[in-house]
Amino acid sequence: MSTGTDDATANLGRRRGRRPAGEDTRGAILAAARDEFAERGFDGASIRSVARRADVDPALVRHYFRDKAELFAAGMIPEGADPAAIASGLVGDGVDGLGARLLTAVLRVWEADGGVAFRVAFAGMTAGELQAEALVGYVGREVFGQVARVLPPPDQQLRVSLVASQMVGVLMTRHVLQLEPLASMPVDAVVALVGPTLQRYLSGPLT
Amino acid sequence: MSTGTDDATANLGRRRGRRPAGEDTRGAILAAARDEFAERGFDGASIRSVARRADVDPALVRHYFRDKAELFAAGMIPEGADPAAIASGLVGDGVDGLGARLLTAVLRVWEADGGVAFRVAFAGMTAGELQAEALVGYVGREVFGQVARVLPPPDQQLRVSLVASQMVGVLMTRHVLQLEPLASMPVDAVVALVGPTLQRYLSGPLT
Repeated sequence: MSTGTDDATANLGRRRGRRPAGEDTRGAILAAARDEFAERGFDGASIRSVARRADVDPALVRHYFRDKAELFAAGMIPEGADPAAIASGLVGDGVDGLGARLLTAVLRVWEADGGVAFRVAFAGMTAGELQAEALVGYVGREVFGQVARVLPPPDQQLRVSLVASQMVGVLMTRHVLQLEPLASMPVDAVVALVGPTLQRYLSGPLT
Repeated sequence: MSTGTDDATANLGRRRGRRPAGEDTRGAILAAARDEFAERGFDGASIRSVARRADVDPALVRHYFRDKAELFAAGMIPEGADPAAIASGLVGDGVDGLGARLLTAVLRVWEADGGVAFRVAFAGMTAGELQAEALVGYVGREVFGQVARVLPPPDQQLRVSLVASQMVGVLMTRHVLQLEPLASMPVDAVVALVGPTLQRYLSGPLT
């Protein structure tokens, strides 16, 4: 449909004259989506309602995000963080020490906004399974696919799911359950404690 | 207020003539609470609305559960499971192998109903922090207090929070994210993989 990201943004943005082309349109849409999911839950929100809140055309929302599920998943990532770029940088140095590097990066990403993005994703969660699929798909594509490629065969997917289980647990403990003392420890101290677990899941003997 | 659980139940139950004394009143209240939290979220539900749904007097709900937060926390535990009794049995055999025993018990408890209770708790979660506090308080009192007592000093609370981080992560991975292959593995296979992590958090060298 569009020839390039910038052109499409500018065209779609200007056509309705709602939003100057220079502005961070994607960021504004994400911020609106977070508010919308937090208020109405996943089922109650729609591409259309997010577009209305962000004051853009729904087509512009669809330009950046394939569907509501991808919008939800992207909303879990604090502004400014690019999971794919981070993962690519981390796996570039190989599997040695990857557990500590990965955990440091993930904790810092969700630390940056005081855990708001992570908690808001929770607020939007319902008993439905669509968001879970969306999250797994998004994080899988952007991050864990890259990680899996540097892992020793044949258990790459198992290793990745174990890594995810410990990472999401640490994020839950810090930002949702707020269970002390783990909740308030500096990132480096958490990495010293939990890094060895992740490294075993990534490259150690599993049983 | 009441002289004993059975008396109070019978009196409160009979006064309105709504529910035969022999029935599992506590279970019925919990089932109603799960439905109510799932539909209205934590903020939208109330002791009164749960009582109405369970067709009992609000005083009877208060007889079993101190407040809405405790009702929410108890609703996370599938029917028939008694976390305090389970924990007490597990720690009785000391800290050796406690990681595997604890994880087996926890996975079985939430496996029993196909993960419904765990997912429903999620549906009730909002950005508010009251439920998280309630959960931490309830699970802390019922389970982790007993675990902490058999752990080597001085890091009992740190060890408990690390154990919680990995346990909640495994439960999330299986019942909410449904990330394969960890999501569908038999309990024993998960315990073989993750048990060593928990044992290190319980009694191993931490860094």
